[in-house]
Amino acid sequence: MSWTTPKKAIMLSAVAEGGTKLNAFDNALLKMGIGNVNLVKLSSVIPAHIEWLDELPKNIPIGMLLPTVYAHIESDEPGSTISAALGVGISEGNEGGLIYEYAGYCTKEEAEEMVKKMVEEGFRVRGWKLKEFKVVSAEITVKDKPAAAVAAVIMFPY
Amino acid sequence: MSWTTPKKAIMLSAVAEGGTKLNAFDNALLKMGIGNVNLVKLSSVIPAHIEWLDELPKNIPIGMLLPTVYAHIESDEPGSTISAALGVGISEGNEGGLIYEYAGYCTKEEAEEMVKKMVEEGFRVRGWKLKEFKVVSAEITVKDKPAAAVAAVIMFPY
Amino acid sequence: MSWTTPKKAIMLSAVAEGGTKLNAFDNALLKMGIGNVNLVKLSSVIPAHIEWLDELPKNIPIGMLLPTVYAHIESDEPGSTISAALGVGISEGNEGGLIYEYAGYCTKEEAEEMVKKMVEEGFRVRGWKLKEFKVVSAEITVKDKPAAAVAAVIMFPY
Repeated sequence: MSWTTPKKAIMLSAVAEGGTKLNAFDNALLKMGIGNVNLVKLSSVIPAHIEWLDELPKNIPIGMLLPTVYAHIESDEPGSTISAALGVGISEGNEGGLIYEYAGYCTKEEAEEMVKKMVEEGFRVRGWKLKEFKVVSAEITVKDKPAAAVAAVIMFPY
Repeated sequence: MSWTTPKKAIMLSAVAEGGTKLNAFDNALLKMGIGNVNLVKLSSVIPAHIEWLDELPKNIPIGMLLPTVYAHIESDEPGSTISAALGVGISEGNEGGLIYEYAGYCTKEEAEEMVKKMVEEGFRVRGWKLKEFKVVSAEITVKDKPAAAVAAVIMFPY
Repeated sequence: MSWTTPKKAIMLSAVAEGGTKLNAFDNALLKMGIGNVNLVKLSSVIPAHIEWLDELPKNIPIGMLLPTVYAHIESDEPGSTISAALGVGISEGNEGGLIYEYAGYCTKEEAEEMVKKMVEEGFRVRGWKLKEFKVVSAEITVKDKPAAAVAAVIMFPY
């Protein structure tokens, strides 16, 4: 087991409200099942031959350090709609992939469109062939409590 | 020794002035004894069965990568009071804990109050029982030089 | 091989344009040869006895996690000049070093001057003797597309 080049990954997203912006963010992580680990923020490249998981591994130790790419936004302005999205492009032969993030005051369709364009440009400038595009996103309209929208790709060293 | 799930931790805080905001931050880290290591920022969960240290380990190599949760604020507005606080909640049986951070233009009592509320909400939404609440904070009123207030939980892999 | 105390490092910088600010940043990383790895942001201390590389190692796996100190700025305001700089101070006997970062709406000479002052203060407050000062910087004037200026010190665990 090595921390340096992740072997598996999963895409997740959620929205939540909370008593503060930080609690709203935390509550969104909890809904995603990653509220009890330590996220270490990465810039955003998918290692070659990554295996995509459909659900989180069991028995992740509390407080484990997991390399994660995430987009998030919090707001306490009632009536505002906020969204976060991550777009993942996978190359032919699973030789690597790219993750682009976007979060802002917009709908999730707009956030998804933004990350799609970014993935396409990332592949074009690298001369890579885009085999598959995947996206996760989350949208919430703020009511009377702080709210958060979070999208994440969590990577695992084993 | 594994980098992935820390074994020990320590809570520290300090304020400092400096020639620039970044130097003020750096000078606060120096006062805390962590000016010569590399902090890798974490989201904020305490691993199970962590051992809390009262003082930093001896002989930490210069430039070592240490997973750290930190709250900080810098300001160069004379007369402003700035504060940073970290609140740590420990669960029954030391099965895990949570760290919440706050930094802003406020007194340290206000920053401490903010993180206390966040810890309480974090435990409530997880259904965890809060056995112990610990807090570190730092406050400084800016004079004629840039100033920083920093609070940190530094974790160790051994 | 341990992730915890890096053994080698390299200083790089680049500017680039892109379809979005994030793509401009990504394109600058690509020019620097680090567009296909995952940067894990560090605070900024050089381990003792680091070996400085003149070129990137061959065969870095796609998606590898590399501890990196970086300064960056993106802008889409036509006519604006943006710059990023990293200043590295090396101590006598290579017992350790410090990295300071600056990025802003300024020329690269101004950004270099800022980091030089920060390095000098960092050495002075530590009582370290500055044997060598190195700087990398990048400057670009925004035209009709989003642009980025990036300076980085990338560290390697082997």
